[in-house]
Amino acid sequence: MTHRIAIIAGDGIGTEVMPEGIRALEATAKRFNIDLEFTTFEFGSCDYYLEHGKMLPDDWFEQLKGFDALFYGAVGWPDKVPDHISLWGSLLQFRRRFDQYINLRPCKLMPGIKSPLAGREPGDIDFYVVRENTEGEYSSVGGKMFEGTDREVVIQDTVMTRTGVDRVLKYAFELAQTRPRKKLTSATKSNGISITMPYWDERVVEMAKGYPEIAVDKFHIDILTANFVLHPDWFDVVVGSNLFGDILSDLGPACTGTIGIAPSANINPEGHFPSLFEPVHGSAPDIAGKGIANPIGQIWSGAMMLEHLGYKEAGDAMVTAIEEVLSEGDATVLTRDVGGEGTTASLGKAIADKL
Amino acid sequence: MTHRIAIIAGDGIGTEVMPEGIRALEATAKRFNIDLEFTTFEFGSCDYYLEHGKMLPDDWFEQLKGFDALFYGAVGWPDKVPDHISLWGSLLQFRRRFDQYINLRPCKLMPGIKSPLAGREPGDIDFYVVRENTEGEYSSVGGKMFEGTDREVVIQDTVMTRTGVDRVLKYAFELAQTRPRKKLTSATKSNGISITMPYWDERVVEMAKGYPEIAVDKFHIDILTANFVLHPDWFDVVVGSNLFGDILSDLGPACTGTIGIAPSANINPEGHFPSLFEPVHGSAPDIAGKGIANPIGQIWSGAMMLEHLGYKEAGDAMVTAIEEVLSEGDATVLTRDVGGEGTTASLGKAIADKL
Ligand SMILES: CC(C)[C@H](C(=O)O)[C@@H](O)C(=O)O
Ligand SMILES: CC(C)[C@H](C(=O)O)[C@@H](O)C(=O)O
Repeated sequence: MTHRIAIIAGDGIGTEVMPEGIRALEATAKRFNIDLEFTTFEFGSCDYYLEHGKMLPDDWFEQLKGFDALFYGAVGWPDKVPDHISLWGSLLQFRRRFDQYINLRPCKLMPGIKSPLAGREPGDIDFYVVRENTEGEYSSVGGKMFEGTDREVVIQDTVMTRTGVDRVLKYAFELAQTRPRKKLTSATKSNGISITMPYWDERVVEMAKGYPEIAVDKFHIDILTANFVLHPDWFDVVVGSNLFGDILSDLGPACTGTIGIAPSANINPEGHFPSLFEPVHGSAPDIAGKGIANPIGQIWSGAMMLEHLGYKEAGDAMVTAIEEVLSEGDATVLTRDVGGEGTTASLGKAIADKL
Repeated sequence: MTHRIAIIAGDGIGTEVMPEGIRALEATAKRFNIDLEFTTFEFGSCDYYLEHGKMLPDDWFEQLKGFDALFYGAVGWPDKVPDHISLWGSLLQFRRRFDQYINLRPCKLMPGIKSPLAGREPGDIDFYVVRENTEGEYSSVGGKMFEGTDREVVIQDTVMTRTGVDRVLKYAFELAQTRPRKKLTSATKSNGISITMPYWDERVVEMAKGYPEIAVDKFHIDILTANFVLHPDWFDVVVGSNLFGDILSDLGPACTGTIGIAPSANINPEGHFPSLFEPVHGSAPDIAGKGIANPIGQIWSGAMMLEHLGYKEAGDAMVTAIEEVLSEGDATVLTRDVGGEGTTASLGKAIADKL
């Protein structure tokens, strides 16, 4: 069975780490006898925008919908195109139109990576953030009145639907069920955001009834961010709205020192549409073109993609290869951000060689 | 000139740390010849709610509006009254009706306090979070439709006004001007929250024109929380919306290890209404009644109150007294959370003795 993968490298270092992601995937596919077929697309980048006046062609949906997965680099280059245009015009379109309602990100201390937290060792921190990825605070409903005057008022709606909330909670509860600790933490702010957040809490209580074996707790987002720093070992599966999940899934990898190398999966669990796999890091215009970007985020995203396609063992092998290369700590191989003097290619090759 | 201070201790450990806050204020007032007059109110607690069916009497506004400041403990006891009722019925009423549109919180590494971040020393981290405190994401506009069905949808509006945004930015820029580094960081999320947040960014650009000597930068809230952990030394004055400020002003003190002892000032800068000074910590039902709560947050809030009333030197002396007692590290004095075996009273008394 051939798995058709669409490649969109995007901007900046996205185009530099993508070849290493593909290299590692090809090595893994060979070893595990997986049939992957890659097709590269040029759209979804700021250069494409400058040429065509839009981030994507009109028929992007038709072009991409038949693929089994999208393997994505990074998009955005503020000096060329404002972020809210490049991102709403590409990444956020994919998430919505392909109904990738789950954003899943691991927060894991990795060997050889320095955590900014004092006294934490690999094994101490290992949890997932599950983020609602299609509605909530990221809405397009709202507007401005009395524009340009002292009475100016700007309004934007947060929209939560029962469908949207319940399906992300269900996914999170089911993920918690597969984990040894069977624990789920809900991010809320029902003490301050008094309409949508109490609703979120209600749905958590309701959903929890179907999963009596899961230990459930909740924290308001303010103290939850504090607890990521103070007690990262408390967490197993953390579920949050679009905005809260966005925050927690950057903060979590920051606490493990992996923000530059963490992966992110945008998943349509039913498989009605392709899911999208991307590194957490952005396009990093400041280091683009130098060949020094760390490709681990792209490779680790590839591991999540294989797991999603049903090849858990192959995905695990990719993560193990990453961990091995990091443990070895060879400075000629590792990129600067992880203490080496190597290049995107040297690190990517070392990982592919393990596979 | 007599300064009339209204005391509302609230719930849980609020009632235990308040006497120590007053003790320290009385010692300082004596030393600096400041005339403070305290009046205690019983309302604004969950017990008051259980008796009266509301958190505050109908004429609370009239009763309190003539005071020069409110000195506040902590409110909330979820087993008695749900948080969104106790908090919207008290603290959030004060903030709105007394137009305390600034929430100001210091994030500072203190001697003798262990930061959860590796390798950070007192002096390394010293910044303020300035939070918009009356509008934004904390709105009461919205509602629910198709209730109880699969089509259920819940909407809540974020509301930003030019008045509301500009005045908090102005305050933050002016605070930055008083600081040696003259740096201001704006918290945004204009790449995802596409109506209100680009507006916030626009107003920052506009306001910055009046303060050419201030170095301004901005980060999206997701990476900003990451940078609080990775680069807390980057920050001087950080300004954010009601929700973003809420998050950052818990996360900041968490990074300095001071979340249990940090103060919070809710300020009406024009002095049309009393400002409110409170510890960041909540009522902590789990340790209430044991006499072990750390009173530093309450005392430090008192220092901010004196500064607000025009007695900067006296406020600084209170902070110095706190730092001295923490540096000495006497375990018989310090409470458990900071490594001692003392009580609320032993620590409060030690600080008052320095003053
Ligand atoms: C208790 C809650 C409503 C409040 C807030 O979110 O404003 C608190 O977190 C704070 O920061 O003072
Ligand atoms: C770039 C931005 C719109 C995006 C988001 O907020 O969703 C990013 O932060 C992410 O988390 O993938």
